Amino acid sequence: MTYCLGMLLSEGLILMADTRTNAGVDNFSSFRKLHTLAEEPSRHLWACTAGSLSITQAILALLAEGLPGPDPDAPPRTFANVPTMFQAAQLLSEATVRVRSGLKPILEADGVSSGVSLLLGGRIGNAPPSLYLVYAAGNWIENKPDAPFFQIGETKYGKPILDRVLQYDTPLDEAVKLGCLSFDAAMRSNLGVARPLDLLILPTDRERPIVKRRIEEEDVWFDALSDRWHEILASAQRDLPNPPWCAED
Amino acid sequence: MTYCLGMLLSEGLILMADTRTNAGVDNFSSFRKLHTLAEEPSRHLWACTAGSLSITQAILALLAEGLPGPDPDAPPRTFANVPTMFQAAQLLSEATVRVRSGLKPILEADGVSSGVSLLLGGRIGNAPPSLYLVYAAGNWIENKPDAPFFQIGETKYGKPILDRVLQYDTPLDEAVKLGCLSFDAAMRSNLGVARPLDLLILPTDRERPIVKRRIEEEDVWFDALSDRWHEILASAQRDLPNPPWCAED
Repeated sequence: MTYCLGMLLSEGLILMADTRTNAGVDNFSSFRKLHTLAEEPSRHLWACTAGSLSITQAILALLAEGLPGPDPDAPPRTFANVPTMFQAAQLLSEATVRVRSGLKPILEADGVSSGVSLLLGGRIGNAPPSLYLVYAAGNWIENKPDAPFFQIGETKYGKPILDRVLQYDTPLDEAVKLGCLSFDAAMRSNLGVARPLDLLILPTDRERPIVKRRIEEEDVWFDALSDRWHEILASAQRDLPNPPWCAED
Repeated sequence: MTYCLGMLLSEGLILMADTRTNAGVDNFSSFRKLHTLAEEPSRHLWACTAGSLSITQAILALLAEGLPGPDPDAPPRTFANVPTMFQAAQLLSEATVRVRSGLKPILEADGVSSGVSLLLGGRIGNAPPSLYLVYAAGNWIENKPDAPFFQIGETKYGKPILDRVLQYDTPLDEAVKLGCLSFDAAMRSNLGVARPLDLLILPTDRERPIVKRRIEEEDVWFDALSDRWHEILASAQRDLPNPPWCAED
């Protein structure tokens, strides 16, 4: 299992991914699932990947070499030269379809899932940051402010805190805390999600620095966040209105 | 979908169930899923049901008539005469196997799921309250203090709050609040879970009254609980330690 989260807020883009891969609880490992696709002053592109690791690795490897364009003399289309985020999503979609069309029947014949899902986030040129979710079939959706986050992989346990509290205008540092609480919930309830976590912040404001951070298995701040959250929930419980029809001792 | 929750605590047993049934979002209805099986001073038995409504209704109808025992002259075995909670779980298991063995092949031929799961809770005679989870195959597990709750149906969204805060020694009124927050999370994230909720409290202390409550679609206390929880989470977020590596404005 895997859990990846993308948040597209007024202040910028946040991507988070765990690193646990497993094929059964007796066969697990750590693989990076937050990938840098392009990194130049005018072009920042990242992807988070969930599902079949062999498929997602093949997709990214294919795109590193590039896909042929309509003009055979032109260089292949890659994330280094695609002109817009929309076309970057199309490119990722096209590579997903190509890789799965070859591997899906072979994997299915062995009873192995070829399911994948990918988040694509970043910014090209003067456009604001954007965030896409690409499904296994290659179709994709773009994130909009009404529901300012996308999840892939183990999405359920970490969703309530985001549904409750995350808003499009939540500041980036507050959103990072909510994202970490969402991962904390997923990690507590599913052994298939685990630290280290990879985290990336791309502020809309170009004066603010891009933040890249790996939260290791031992991380003083994350542990303090989790402990403090536990205290808040435990005391909040007592602060809630008592059911008026519940018998007193 | 459905969500049912059973909590077995030092102070007693709590059962909660929503009432939403659906076969697609365009075909939904309300059905009671918290069923009274036996109710006498020395015998209180309830079941919560999830999964195929036709199967769970058939199981409970079969048990209302009773299953034949080893002695053909003796009255059939029912929840009104089964001597222990263990044997009540066995009886429910036996009826589940009988009903599914007839219906499963027929339903599967039409591509319809015959999956079910049931919670059985209550008390017989002088024994303390107990809680069982019966799976579709008829096998069952009994709840123990290390993990003092069982869930069936839409279990994921409502699990983190219980994993975080519920303990075996949580008082009943606090546990009711946590249970309602767990349902609130499930209802916010899955349209297949909805009020009215049915709630039942069987205190271990026989001097305390049994509480039965239906929380309707409009319920002042539940709404206040949900609103207060929202305020607490929103302010708690600001009270959490800021990520030290996150850029300040």
